[in-house]
Amino acid sequence: MSDLQAVIRQLVAGNRILGHEGVVDAYGHISVRHPDNPKRYLLSRARSPELVEPDDILEFELDGTPVDQRNRPIYIERPIHGAIYEARPDVMAVIHNHCPEILPFAISKTPMRAAVNAARGVGLSVPVWDIRDKFGDTDGLVTTMAQGRDLAVTLGAGKAVIMRGHGCSIGGATIPNVVQLAIGIQINARAIVDGLRLGEVTYLTPGEVAAPMAGAAAIRGFDRAWEYLCRRAGVAPE
Amino acid sequence: MSDLQAVIRQLVAGNRILGHEGVVDAYGHISVRHPDNPKRYLLSRARSPELVEPDDILEFELDGTPVDQRNRPIYIERPIHGAIYEARPDVMAVIHNHCPEILPFAISKTPMRAAVNAARGVGLSVPVWDIRDKFGDTDGLVTTMAQGRDLAVTLGAGKAVIMRGHGCSIGGATIPNVVQLAIGIQINARAIVDGLRLGEVTYLTPGEVAAPMAGAAAIRGFDRAWEYLCRRAGVAPE
Amino acid sequence: MSDLQAVIRQLVAGNRILGHEGVVDAYGHISVRHPDNPKRYLLSRARSPELVEPDDILEFELDGTPVDQRNRPIYIERPIHGAIYEARPDVMAVIHNHCPEILPFAISKTPMRAAVNAARGVGLSVPVWDIRDKFGDTDGLVTTMAQGRDLAVTLGAGKAVIMRGHGCSIGGATIPNVVQLAIGIQINARAIVDGLRLGEVTYLTPGEVAAPMAGAAAIRGFDRAWEYLCRRAGVAPE
Amino acid sequence: MSDLQAVIRQLVAGNRILGHEGVVDAYGHISVRHPDNPKRYLLSRARSPELVEPDDILEFELDGTPVDQRNRPIYIERPIHGAIYEARPDVMAVIHNHCPEILPFAISKTPMRAAVNAARGVGLSVPVWDIRDKFGDTDGLVTTMAQGRDLAVTLGAGKAVIMRGHGCSIGGATIPNVVQLAIGIQINARAIVDGLRLGEVTYLTPGEVAAPMAGAAAIRGFDRAWEYLCRRAGVAPE
Repeated sequence: MSDLQAVIRQLVAGNRILGHEGVVDAYGHISVRHPDNPKRYLLSRARSPELVEPDDILEFELDGTPVDQRNRPIYIERPIHGAIYEARPDVMAVIHNHCPEILPFAISKTPMRAAVNAARGVGLSVPVWDIRDKFGDTDGLVTTMAQGRDLAVTLGAGKAVIMRGHGCSIGGATIPNVVQLAIGIQINARAIVDGLRLGEVTYLTPGEVAAPMAGAAAIRGFDRAWEYLCRRAGVAPE
Repeated sequence: MSDLQAVIRQLVAGNRILGHEGVVDAYGHISVRHPDNPKRYLLSRARSPELVEPDDILEFELDGTPVDQRNRPIYIERPIHGAIYEARPDVMAVIHNHCPEILPFAISKTPMRAAVNAARGVGLSVPVWDIRDKFGDTDGLVTTMAQGRDLAVTLGAGKAVIMRGHGCSIGGATIPNVVQLAIGIQINARAIVDGLRLGEVTYLTPGEVAAPMAGAAAIRGFDRAWEYLCRRAGVAPE
Repeated sequence: MSDLQAVIRQLVAGNRILGHEGVVDAYGHISVRHPDNPKRYLLSRARSPELVEPDDILEFELDGTPVDQRNRPIYIERPIHGAIYEARPDVMAVIHNHCPEILPFAISKTPMRAAVNAARGVGLSVPVWDIRDKFGDTDGLVTTMAQGRDLAVTLGAGKAVIMRGHGCSIGGATIPNVVQLAIGIQINARAIVDGLRLGEVTYLTPGEVAAPMAGAAAIRGFDRAWEYLCRRAGVAPE
Repeated sequence: MSDLQAVIRQLVAGNRILGHEGVVDAYGHISVRHPDNPKRYLLSRARSPELVEPDDILEFELDGTPVDQRNRPIYIERPIHGAIYEARPDVMAVIHNHCPEILPFAISKTPMRAAVNAARGVGLSVPVWDIRDKFGDTDGLVTTMAQGRDLAVTLGAGKAVIMRGHGCSIGGATIPNVVQLAIGIQINARAIVDGLRLGEVTYLTPGEVAAPMAGAAAIRGFDRAWEYLCRRAGVAPE
């Protein structure tokens, strides 16, 4: 029980951070798999992440059915979360966003490849999913489990997937991890867009992306980022 | 009576939001059609949107004549608002702005087309109006009804029109709607300018732009954005 | 006497605004011609504009000699101000800055031409002064009256001059006017740099730049901007 | 003793400033050589610079061994600092960062050369170090003294070195000096990336980079920047 409350507090922190760091604006969302029930996930009612409070967090079945909706509006793109949790037992937290840094990659043919250390966690390259390939002309939103599952196929075993004309979705091992991945993607994207003005871009090698982090101290480095992000967003790190 | 006060409060909120989100700076304005009299509209006295108070709101005839000017300076570009309301009975709120994201499209030949979901509401492509075509060398401002009406012709049945060397004007169904359109244009514009650095840009298809929003939940999504924008701008959402 | 105090308060406001709007950072300065003595000007002691207080304002002869230095460090680039006041009796306020928007034009051969309405006041095109042409390899700073006078020759009858590898200097009729010109240059510069990503840029025509502002209401528009800039910078408009 | 406390306060100020000015985010660090013992340096425990407090500062041997770790996590990239102090007796303060402005130069072949006055202190050109040249595929972090020393070789007698796919490291004569160098690099980098959109970039000449600053007043100008940076970051300048 207290564990669940801690997870909810961390999910609220994740929401606030994504808003504060410009990963999301009015739209976009972050969820976490239920700590006691891998067949469920926690996600805010339909509200902008920057404004989310603990009381806004609802519980959902993987198919998107709310366990107790409490008469509240809910995000229409829940299938993104459910389908990724369904396909990927290792993923414990999911973010969907349309940050301005990712959009250039969502509307052009240049692949997003890891160019800077900060993006190593995202892997060598980020695949692109085009909803039109299977579902034709739509409003672009992922509103059915069939669409979500197709997105999850493109995600494959990776950490992130770009959605053509839309944004991206990211899966991580924890809330702090997935938040950091989202920020790493922002940094990498901006570096490439600006770097291309200077000429050809040198990407990380497969060996560099795959290299283990040097030493246990790296773990502590990660906590450092979470403290920083929480403090900037005005929430208590825990 | 109380309805009018609510509209005025929402118009003030719209002003503050446009300032806060960088859609306008010292200049630019937002109006709303009078709720009880379609032949009139409400607009602030000449003041920067970020500073507008309820008491600043004045009432105008469609030809730009103030109903009661109360000895105050008024915006010289009122004809933008009046001419659009005159030509388009469906338009209930109008924004005129020169945000930095739109200016590249106002000074080049590349058309602004919808590339990302956030810009679907703007339609497939935004026409460009050049004041010089009919009115020769001017200071660029829309100061006569003849100019405003010519602008409205280029707007046609669309949601927005780019003004060469100047900015853009946008018409919407409500204040929250037109504010969201202005922000969607910013997002789309930045995505294209940055996306072109990566290569050719893939725009939304006509079918994608025309597709209906999936489900009633979309409406709730819109309220979510208004709550977010109001809270960020420090005004109460209503 | 009270007139001088009002000018000093407005000069402090100008300093704060330039800092707040990103026209200057730690460096850069703004001066005003002395209201009672055209052979003198007022300028802060050496301090970053964002921090300037009324007590920081000192009086200088046009050759840069402080009337009463009060043992304070003073800006080394005073000759920019004195030489422009000397050459241009119509100029009552001067800004020197290195804002990031202007630097691309200071290090490339593309001329800064007016592309958007907001830059009409700057004139058709901004000349570039290269200190190296007459003074060889220096630290780039304008530290002698000979350098300042050479800069003023390039400024000519214009409003602004770009300084190669350095920044720009701007002369205006009043403090609010010169501050607005500096901001107009920022807006125009960003529009061109971004606009060139979309293709060829269409500049304003000579006739458009020279066209008078439409109607007396334009004057009121200017006051509106000053109120806005002062309020944002946390100073009282007057 | 009191001298050491003043150095620690200045180091904390440097940390806060780097965070506030966007030179660092969650990662990156600044150190200072111990004022009484050139074989040691002071550096925060592993914490984001924006959050660093005086009590976080630890003392290290040049090889990275903490003198008294007090059970705290420490930065894994300490070898950057130690190796530069070891190789360069003139360097009294070191910054390592990955600011978004420098990343384009870390992932492309275009050299960072001084183009604007603000970057004169960095020297004519900034060399690039690629960890892969000597150490093969790694996680990119400088975690051994061998790596740090190799980095210091590329730094040579210069002020800064770019690290491929990673960021840069900078050495200066004092904390205010190295902080100003980091900011000068940001300004120069942004100017070049934007300037290249306008065409070929004109860099400073060797003579301009080498020219002495004009007059003792320049020193006072430097203090001005430190006061500004401290005040913006909310710390007392000293």
